[in-house]
Amino acid sequence: MVVEMIENIYRALFYLEDLREILRETAPEHHLSEEQRTKFDHIADELQAMVDERGGRKLKYITDKLELRTKEEEFINIDPIQAAGRLTVEARKALIAYGDGYSTCDYCFKPFRLDYIKRPPIAEFIEELAEFVGMDVARVVRGARNGFQIVATALLEKGDIALVSSLAHYSLCLAIESVGAIWKEVPLNEQNIITGENTAKKIEEVNEQTGTMPKLIAISHFDYMLGNEHDVYGIGRVCKEYGIPFLYNGAYTVGVMPVDGKKIGADFVVGSGHKSMAAPAPTGVLATTKESAARVFATTKLKGDVTGRQFGIKEPYLLGCTVMGAPLVAMMASFPTVKERVRHWNEELERSTFFIAQFLEIEGNQVSSELPRKHTLTKVDTTGSFDRIANTHARRGYFLYDELTKRKITGIFPGATREFKLNTYGLSWSQITYLANAFKAIAEEHGLSVG
Amino acid sequence: MVVEMIENIYRALFYLEDLREILRETAPEHHLSEEQRTKFDHIADELQAMVDERGGRKLKYITDKLELRTKEEEFINIDPIQAAGRLTVEARKALIAYGDGYSTCDYCFKPFRLDYIKRPPIAEFIEELAEFVGMDVARVVRGARNGFQIVATALLEKGDIALVSSLAHYSLCLAIESVGAIWKEVPLNEQNIITGENTAKKIEEVNEQTGTMPKLIAISHFDYMLGNEHDVYGIGRVCKEYGIPFLYNGAYTVGVMPVDGKKIGADFVVGSGHKSMAAPAPTGVLATTKESAARVFATTKLKGDVTGRQFGIKEPYLLGCTVMGAPLVAMMASFPTVKERVRHWNEELERSTFFIAQFLEIEGNQVSSELPRKHTLTKVDTTGSFDRIANTHARRGYFLYDELTKRKITGIFPGATREFKLNTYGLSWSQITYLANAFKAIAEEHGLSVG
Repeated sequence: MVVEMIENIYRALFYLEDLREILRETAPEHHLSEEQRTKFDHIADELQAMVDERGGRKLKYITDKLELRTKEEEFINIDPIQAAGRLTVEARKALIAYGDGYSTCDYCFKPFRLDYIKRPPIAEFIEELAEFVGMDVARVVRGARNGFQIVATALLEKGDIALVSSLAHYSLCLAIESVGAIWKEVPLNEQNIITGENTAKKIEEVNEQTGTMPKLIAISHFDYMLGNEHDVYGIGRVCKEYGIPFLYNGAYTVGVMPVDGKKIGADFVVGSGHKSMAAPAPTGVLATTKESAARVFATTKLKGDVTGRQFGIKEPYLLGCTVMGAPLVAMMASFPTVKERVRHWNEELERSTFFIAQFLEIEGNQVSSELPRKHTLTKVDTTGSFDRIANTHARRGYFLYDELTKRKITGIFPGATREFKLNTYGLSWSQITYLANAFKAIAEEHGLSVG
Repeated sequence: MVVEMIENIYRALFYLEDLREILRETAPEHHLSEEQRTKFDHIADELQAMVDERGGRKLKYITDKLELRTKEEEFINIDPIQAAGRLTVEARKALIAYGDGYSTCDYCFKPFRLDYIKRPPIAEFIEELAEFVGMDVARVVRGARNGFQIVATALLEKGDIALVSSLAHYSLCLAIESVGAIWKEVPLNEQNIITGENTAKKIEEVNEQTGTMPKLIAISHFDYMLGNEHDVYGIGRVCKEYGIPFLYNGAYTVGVMPVDGKKIGADFVVGSGHKSMAAPAPTGVLATTKESAARVFATTKLKGDVTGRQFGIKEPYLLGCTVMGAPLVAMMASFPTVKERVRHWNEELERSTFFIAQFLEIEGNQVSSELPRKHTLTKVDTTGSFDRIANTHARRGYFLYDELTKRKITGIFPGATREFKLNTYGLSWSQITYLANAFKAIAEEHGLSVG
């Protein structure tokens, strides 16, 4: 029934896009040819039939080979990276209205730069973004990784060393490698945490071994692997002491919890739109202080040797305008909700904590992340529970995925029964309860004791 | 009437998104709370009322301060950069289905790279893309400028010289500047064309002056300023002779006309999704030969000094996965149409040629681009016609913009009456005729002789 409802909604949405297409084809006079008229009437009839619940044909594909995606409507999605990147309804509406290539550029006037555009209110949004993360200046970038790249390109020379976490995301390491610099890792302490102390030790070590200081320290507040909280305040202090720029990686914080970059002592704050700001990929934010803005948002200096051309206030490390279209407008449309939701992070943690407690009631279940949980992203260890079942199950490790899918839960890596990650961000209490009960039921049905 | 129709379509689309949101909030059991039930019924009623044409409230905003965009439905849009980036209806449907952040990553399995994903069929699409531009290997990138950046980062060292056209787009120059290299310009000939001969001369000149050869030559097939065709075959030959890599900038060709990179002698082909491939921003394609792929798509080489981690086949210059979401799927959804439409480029040229001929019937009108036109993007010169009117008109240069807007034509820079650009790409014969007649009527009404 629900699946039919989803299909019906998609069908109606698509009929409306078909109607819209006829308006586009015939603009501005909208004289419909006979063929267009027939098509228009047909679509309107289909839509009417659908609203009258007179049924309709099955819908599985958008176009050749491209399936509908109904994961968010049919399932509880606990995918570790997807949870906080789900669009708000406002963002989905914005995508509908601003899909076309250069849709944001209708009112781009002097000085011709994305972050100056007033209609839609991009300039205002970007100012608010800086404030939102407690910094002076911000830009929307093409994903958090593009933020890392901009900083790496501006600050690092070939052979320079940058320090990252032993749990750093690969994209940060690639950004450093891409400019010919080298990343070295700050070790975790015994609690799997990056501390200010270990960061200082590593700085000294690098200095001893190479005779130079690291040129950048880039650490995530919460890492992608365990969702542990790292001592960004301590690291911020150490960076200040040594005079090394500190990039705060907020891919898992900006957009879900309050972030105050200056209080942390960050020179750069990087966030991810599609990971934590209810925005489509590829979007992100790079924010900085007034002082560092001059470096990373430096304007172009070269001049044409033949024409004498210069490109004014364009920013080379950003390549000028960044995300000039649909994903930006969708990010903006989500922003009021995002600003509000960070104030309710504690409620998210409560639900996550509730789920983890329930999950740990299953015999043999463990949590690899720090406890108590400070994030909705958690790595769990079911080697002593679900993996034991997998050993003798006909479907091996896939049994867990199958059982969850049957219960309309998605986002767990297929086949994984030892360690896997999940993220409860955005689930309501009833969904959280449903999720916890589902895991318990699967455990019980397979002979694990619960309780 | 039409405006109401557009509003109605938007309203219905938005109602459906509201319904969809309730499904998301209640997944997977879909037990509606009383509040949700009331909301659901209300939305369904509104939708029914709308289909029954019982009217409805005005709709102007998506959400706070974010206006609806109805440019493509209400107007003929001849914006020079927007024309070929308008979405197909399939792309709009794809955006609806795949808006959420990591929507393309549901079935990302080993080796965990975007271009290996089979569902949706990204791997297949990317293979077809390479073939589409006559090269061996391709990647989707974050706009053409990101393509330039990838090549610049991989090929250029600090202080290296790259040659660009005297009409090069600023984003190419910034990409070169961003890595600390220097761009120098190949002069235009008297017909405003970049030739192989001038390219060779410039190579020699750079070599004489600096004692080194340029490390990259990057020239657009059609430039963004005049839409003139440059001698890319000749330039390709010169690059081969000197052994300098040639980047073919196809921002105005890939997706609108057939492009065969190898035949041209290109080492790199760069295209723009949002400019010429009916895709949302920020999207583009970077394609290359087997030989050069090893350089620009080199895989990561570094290793964690503490953990020993390596990142396998991730590509540093691309920062790993590039456009992992809505814009990519929309680009894919448009691709069948795009493949077909490049075969009809001649028809686009016929309509453009017709329009230009009509436009030139207006006393004093001139064309700054080469004639006959080989592209739908044209720079016109109305200093001797509309600008004369502007001189004494109460609204000054804005009169032309006003007059066009009144006739539901958009995309001309407000206030411009001397030189301005327009692009007729994608207009039907009836739209082209309408457009030509509109310009003539404006001219006549202001006392210019026509015909």
